[in-house]
Amino acid sequence: MQNPKEIAVVGAGLVGTLLAIYLKKAGHIVHVYDRSPDIRTVEFSGRSINLVMSNRGWKTLEDIGLEDEIRKIGIPVDKRGIHLKDGTFTTQNYGKEGEAIFSLSRGVLNRRMIDLAEEAGVKFMFNRKIWDVSLATATLYEGETEQGEWSPLKYDMVFGADGAFSRIRHRMQRQSMFDYSQEFMKLGYKELHIPANPDGTHKIDKNSLHIWPRGNFMLMALSNLDGSFTCTLFMPFEGENSFEQLKDEATLVDFFANYFSDTKEVIPDLVRDFFKNPTSYLAIMKCYPWTYEDKVALIGDSSHAIVPFYGQGMNAGFEDISVLNEMMNKYGDDWKTIFAEYQKSRKPNADAIAELSRRNFVEMSSKTADEKFLLQKKIEKWFSDKHPDKWLPLYSRVTFSLQPYAEALAIGDRQNEIMEEILSMEHIEENWQTEVVEHRILSLLAEKMS
Amino acid sequence: MQNPKEIAVVGAGLVGTLLAIYLKKAGHIVHVYDRSPDIRTVEFSGRSINLVMSNRGWKTLEDIGLEDEIRKIGIPVDKRGIHLKDGTFTTQNYGKEGEAIFSLSRGVLNRRMIDLAEEAGVKFMFNRKIWDVSLATATLYEGETEQGEWSPLKYDMVFGADGAFSRIRHRMQRQSMFDYSQEFMKLGYKELHIPANPDGTHKIDKNSLHIWPRGNFMLMALSNLDGSFTCTLFMPFEGENSFEQLKDEATLVDFFANYFSDTKEVIPDLVRDFFKNPTSYLAIMKCYPWTYEDKVALIGDSSHAIVPFYGQGMNAGFEDISVLNEMMNKYGDDWKTIFAEYQKSRKPNADAIAELSRRNFVEMSSKTADEKFLLQKKIEKWFSDKHPDKWLPLYSRVTFSLQPYAEALAIGDRQNEIMEEILSMEHIEENWQTEVVEHRILSLLAEKMS
Repeated sequence: MQNPKEIAVVGAGLVGTLLAIYLKKAGHIVHVYDRSPDIRTVEFSGRSINLVMSNRGWKTLEDIGLEDEIRKIGIPVDKRGIHLKDGTFTTQNYGKEGEAIFSLSRGVLNRRMIDLAEEAGVKFMFNRKIWDVSLATATLYEGETEQGEWSPLKYDMVFGADGAFSRIRHRMQRQSMFDYSQEFMKLGYKELHIPANPDGTHKIDKNSLHIWPRGNFMLMALSNLDGSFTCTLFMPFEGENSFEQLKDEATLVDFFANYFSDTKEVIPDLVRDFFKNPTSYLAIMKCYPWTYEDKVALIGDSSHAIVPFYGQGMNAGFEDISVLNEMMNKYGDDWKTIFAEYQKSRKPNADAIAELSRRNFVEMSSKTADEKFLLQKKIEKWFSDKHPDKWLPLYSRVTFSLQPYAEALAIGDRQNEIMEEILSMEHIEENWQTEVVEHRILSLLAEKMS
Repeated sequence: MQNPKEIAVVGAGLVGTLLAIYLKKAGHIVHVYDRSPDIRTVEFSGRSINLVMSNRGWKTLEDIGLEDEIRKIGIPVDKRGIHLKDGTFTTQNYGKEGEAIFSLSRGVLNRRMIDLAEEAGVKFMFNRKIWDVSLATATLYEGETEQGEWSPLKYDMVFGADGAFSRIRHRMQRQSMFDYSQEFMKLGYKELHIPANPDGTHKIDKNSLHIWPRGNFMLMALSNLDGSFTCTLFMPFEGENSFEQLKDEATLVDFFANYFSDTKEVIPDLVRDFFKNPTSYLAIMKCYPWTYEDKVALIGDSSHAIVPFYGQGMNAGFEDISVLNEMMNKYGDDWKTIFAEYQKSRKPNADAIAELSRRNFVEMSSKTADEKFLLQKKIEKWFSDKHPDKWLPLYSRVTFSLQPYAEALAIGDRQNEIMEEILSMEHIEENWQTEVVEHRILSLLAEKMS
């Protein structure tokens, strides 16, 4: 057990709340500040992609004994369900038999986590706006408005779990030697809704992550416990097939009839939802360092906001907590070393999952409908079944293993080079299940992985 | 002539001041705000690398008739003067006979430019701190302190020429879809001083840019009109041969005696200057967009802060003004289009000079002392003299031409590929002035430049 400290966590989102539980159980006094009202008392607004929990996230929950609580509110999803433009529906398994990601609605999960944190003794301060922090003294400044009066709140330590637009990072950014970047995608997203059947069952398969891949845009849907689905339309803001073009009801209805004909029955409130819900932005934020001496640390999206296409945003944030906890166990009360080792360990992995997530849009929106890509997946699966010690597909490394993201990315790149060579073999479409191919992969592995 | 507007320029540095002259001469009312006192009334602080003006900068001055005024306060520099560790001194010409860059001291130049701007009718507001801007209304907010009371200053248009840490950009950064990055080098710099001889002459050749290349660190010196030199020591902050290591007088004196033995006579106040002058940071800032509708535009370092190793920071900023002026002449009162075309034209070129400048540290600090690099330069010069229409070295493209930076970079990369092949030819050291080499370059050019 560490010497107890008074710790402020800024941000009552998923990462802030779970971090608070870890810190509380390690013996500290923990206050969580959030600028919004208690999410348990308000209706959750419609601008979130559903979350998926995979092995990294579960690991962090397991280590503190919370995985059973959360498993109850999720739905296992073991495959992609691909809706082609001609109405055909096919599925692609994510991993091996029994491997699945878990679909969770953000609101439901966040409320449950806050309950669990309160049970553990964490104190929440909602409707409290933190505008600034003094890094050297771990003092927060709160006030009604940015330009108004502020009062200081002194702590021993501050964690900035305040998301992609973090105020804590904003202060760090004005230090010398602080690297920072924010990059907005040309792509936005909008939430749509598939309601439950009258009897509470799901209208389409609840154990699939549904994708309508259409090249530079796509629709996806993830199941909720109440029988509904949260759908997300990803499209460019401008240009061909863009939000800019879907200006009126007639255009929208035509567009959906043309590209997503099989959604007509299941998205009854398309027009209302489309024009009511905001079009949201996607951004990638990177920075370094993540910590200031033994006083302030960033965690989760505040230090590495990524795009959602690998379903790893929350998982990466939870893994931050696991690594921080590992350093706490290793270095005791030496918070300077805890923070230094935490950021050193996490930074390359945060960069790697940012890159993997960026790339995965193309995989989801185009490749899932591409014959060559499907053949590659089949060959990888066939070879992996024969040589499980020699080949784990990239998606499985990222999703169903705890291998550091940076290693997964590096190995995945080499695997891709190998598969490019295999796919360029003559008549590979017919001959992929042959000894020739198997030996070619083995020899390429020997060459590239050494 | 455009319809007169009331325009605020934030920042009375070189770019802000020259921009103000252009805007004033185009018929506008121009107020320049700066948070510092009038530089003409204070001693200039010692934390600036000397500036070099080259063709792009001169072009912008020429177009408004100011080049003669500025040429008077500069010193032409037509070569690198390389001080090797063993005391040997050699020179490397920058371009052809008659081509030179101009050494200017920042303080002297800035004062002269403000005089010229006032003569043109520009109004300067010194000691006025601008903290924020309302982008939609071109309203500045000024006040004594960031947290204190602010008063609004309403204009038709605002230019942010407020440098690498721009407050105007800071506001834009908090908009959605604004891309931004800041990256600090692991390298810092410190200003040192070579005084004039008692008779006002220079102690070392005034027409050379002096470099003491030492691998991961270097010293350089640029001449001033008063017979002195501004010297700059570039070194890593930490590690071997770093600022961190030069903690006391004895270590410093030893270090200089070892690495820069020939400076002992010419830098008499080494110890005093070293410990008095700050160690400054180097950063690369990028962003996009640079403008907000027809109301606000960034220019110079605020939109593209680069490292100083190509001597192009000021030149790139002045070229921004030329491009803006070109758009003003082309689109009249349509400021929305002027701003849109200005940023579209400049952004790829700003990115290119950022990249070129970053790379040039290695050229200055290592390659200038490298035999292979010197051979490459000789071959390039020899071939360029024979085929001036086919080969202009990259340095000349950047420095002595007005070719867009992005084109210069792309062509330079292909030239480098060619030279790598040439330098790998057997016995190239003896045989470089032969027809075989000439024809090999010609055939590589035909292959790569098509």
